[in-house]
Amino acid sequence: MKQYTIVLLWGFILSGFTVFSQTNQAVAEDFKPSTVNQPGQEYPQVNSQGYARFQILAPEAKSVVVSLGLGGAKGGTPLAKGEDGLWRGTTAGAMDEGFHYYHVTVDGGVFNDPGALNFYGSTRWESGIEIPAHDQDFYALKNVPHGNVQQILFPSKSTNTSRRAYVYTPPGYDKEKAKKYPVLYLQHGWGEDETAWSNQGRVNLIMDNLIAEGKIKPFLIVMTYGMTNEIKYGGLASFKIEPFQNVLTEELIPYMDSNFRTLANHANRAMAGLSMGGMETKSITLNKPEVFSHYALLSGGTYKPEDIKDKSKVKLIFLSCGSKERPDGVKNAVSTLKTAGFNAVSYVSENTGHEFQTWRRSFKELAPLLFKE
Amino acid sequence: MKQYTIVLLWGFILSGFTVFSQTNQAVAEDFKPSTVNQPGQEYPQVNSQGYARFQILAPEAKSVVVSLGLGGAKGGTPLAKGEDGLWRGTTAGAMDEGFHYYHVTVDGGVFNDPGALNFYGSTRWESGIEIPAHDQDFYALKNVPHGNVQQILFPSKSTNTSRRAYVYTPPGYDKEKAKKYPVLYLQHGWGEDETAWSNQGRVNLIMDNLIAEGKIKPFLIVMTYGMTNEIKYGGLASFKIEPFQNVLTEELIPYMDSNFRTLANHANRAMAGLSMGGMETKSITLNKPEVFSHYALLSGGTYKPEDIKDKSKVKLIFLSCGSKERPDGVKNAVSTLKTAGFNAVSYVSENTGHEFQTWRRSFKELAPLLFKE
Repeated sequence: MKQYTIVLLWGFILSGFTVFSQTNQAVAEDFKPSTVNQPGQEYPQVNSQGYARFQILAPEAKSVVVSLGLGGAKGGTPLAKGEDGLWRGTTAGAMDEGFHYYHVTVDGGVFNDPGALNFYGSTRWESGIEIPAHDQDFYALKNVPHGNVQQILFPSKSTNTSRRAYVYTPPGYDKEKAKKYPVLYLQHGWGEDETAWSNQGRVNLIMDNLIAEGKIKPFLIVMTYGMTNEIKYGGLASFKIEPFQNVLTEELIPYMDSNFRTLANHANRAMAGLSMGGMETKSITLNKPEVFSHYALLSGGTYKPEDIKDKSKVKLIFLSCGSKERPDGVKNAVSTLKTAGFNAVSYVSENTGHEFQTWRRSFKELAPLLFKE
Repeated sequence: MKQYTIVLLWGFILSGFTVFSQTNQAVAEDFKPSTVNQPGQEYPQVNSQGYARFQILAPEAKSVVVSLGLGGAKGGTPLAKGEDGLWRGTTAGAMDEGFHYYHVTVDGGVFNDPGALNFYGSTRWESGIEIPAHDQDFYALKNVPHGNVQQILFPSKSTNTSRRAYVYTPPGYDKEKAKKYPVLYLQHGWGEDETAWSNQGRVNLIMDNLIAEGKIKPFLIVMTYGMTNEIKYGGLASFKIEPFQNVLTEELIPYMDSNFRTLANHANRAMAGLSMGGMETKSITLNKPEVFSHYALLSGGTYKPEDIKDKSKVKLIFLSCGSKERPDGVKNAVSTLKTAGFNAVSYVSENTGHEFQTWRRSFKELAPLLFKE
């Protein structure tokens, strides 16, 4: 477990350095407000090349620096003060396509950009920015029937609380009152929470679009907080899987099967997770082979054939990552699994790293493979 | 309309000055983290008297000031820098019970407190702090059956978008598949959005608790954004009711009646709103008497008997405000309505102003009066 932890943290740090594609291109002056700005806010902005431009009001400040990346980025983009008290600056290079967390350091204190919406990552609500992607259509809000994302509060005896989860129900769920659905349990990464897959991942819109195109069999998605036992939020050193495994398999799954129209059996239950959520997925699927039949690790490690006791219980193993991570590890693991007779699939997201664009794309590839029988 | 607008804005400004109850009491050193802090954050804190204490890291800053209140508060609480680079300070007096928005001004720039969760108010996501209230039990998260709050995206031809709303469904909604429910359309105030009644108002928990105590007939609540036509977010000068009225009555209500198990008739449809949402409620209920039968304005104005064309169409008029607002206006209006033969009810929240504690309490009083026949 500890070794795995180090690999994951290393991934975060690497991503801090690879988020920029340094080039000597001229900066195109076609900047537009980021699509995840707060209502009516003109900044931050992004251009057609993937550069980001910031503007922060702090007339009496000595220094304002924007830090992009998953908390591990050094340096960042220093802003320069204008006579109007506004600090302005543009990234030194183009950023990877998709969503990025960032924050602003003002005179040594860490704050969010008042212009941007906040997203829970790095164990806090951070500013977010969206770099338009060539393939952004698959997670766009379109004029198609939309599923709902509902907040549920389920009783948890093991933690003595009502715990929160979000449930995606596909379009038509409320109308087709006799129909039952398979369920995917989908985990966030380190420092994130149960809001991440909807807010950063847009998983509900990806589902809506795939369903509208007839590319997938509709299923429910359940997202809950996976660091159940952490007193110091976000600490990994003391992480044990059992408390969360207990919440998931003994409390949440029975609640879902009792309160939603689920196909409550092994064949129709999948688990997937990104980064640390992949670590959780691996542990729980191996510990509880009778519960889940489809497994997916998104930038979250690999399975070996010898990890799995009963091959007949596994319908799918899906492994993915960004091309800037360790794609050979994923490809080789899938190759080995296939040789051993597993239905295994790999996916590598081009020109992305340990970041949400990788996981949006991975989800789009994964969804059509689930619950095919 | 314009005159009304001015009264509302005046309410905001007043609230900025009345949020503190200035006394000469000694400050009790029993400060605890606010219940709406970010996970694991020790500051801001509140004590048993309602004082708030702040701590912000900004080692190189020249000044850090906390501003409490609905954007209109002057001055605020200046923090003092310690040798450790942390700025600290305590409010000069006790604050009203309940929820308050605030922000931090660092060297002339407006930011949120990194320790606190953010809530959408004043047309932006602002820091929030919760002052424990003597009656906080009614909106506490308890070990009772919980309803769900679901995000829906409904098609809106008039605005050429998919618009977001939140729908509260009571416990058991998914199990009792034949049961149909009345619906309350519930509006936020100026500068807020469709998240306010759940996040700041805790309306889902108030409902769960009232239902568990057998005090109300379960109903659905629908919350959507009410400033449909505003290009400059939050502007009131150009506000016209028609665009929102059209979204609500021609698009959202038909969507709800088609996709949820509603009692789709006049007798089982209510509208309520706080502050500017009250203004909208008044206009729309008067324009569309055939749509709604129960009306409620929470710190949002009053009705006169002569406003209403057909008395037989109105089952309930509920008017409320905080004791620090204009309670006589509410009481006198209800008295006049009663004399004219209306089923009218007033409620005044003691020791609160134009703020969410008034509206939480108002909602608790309103809910048992709805859909009684």
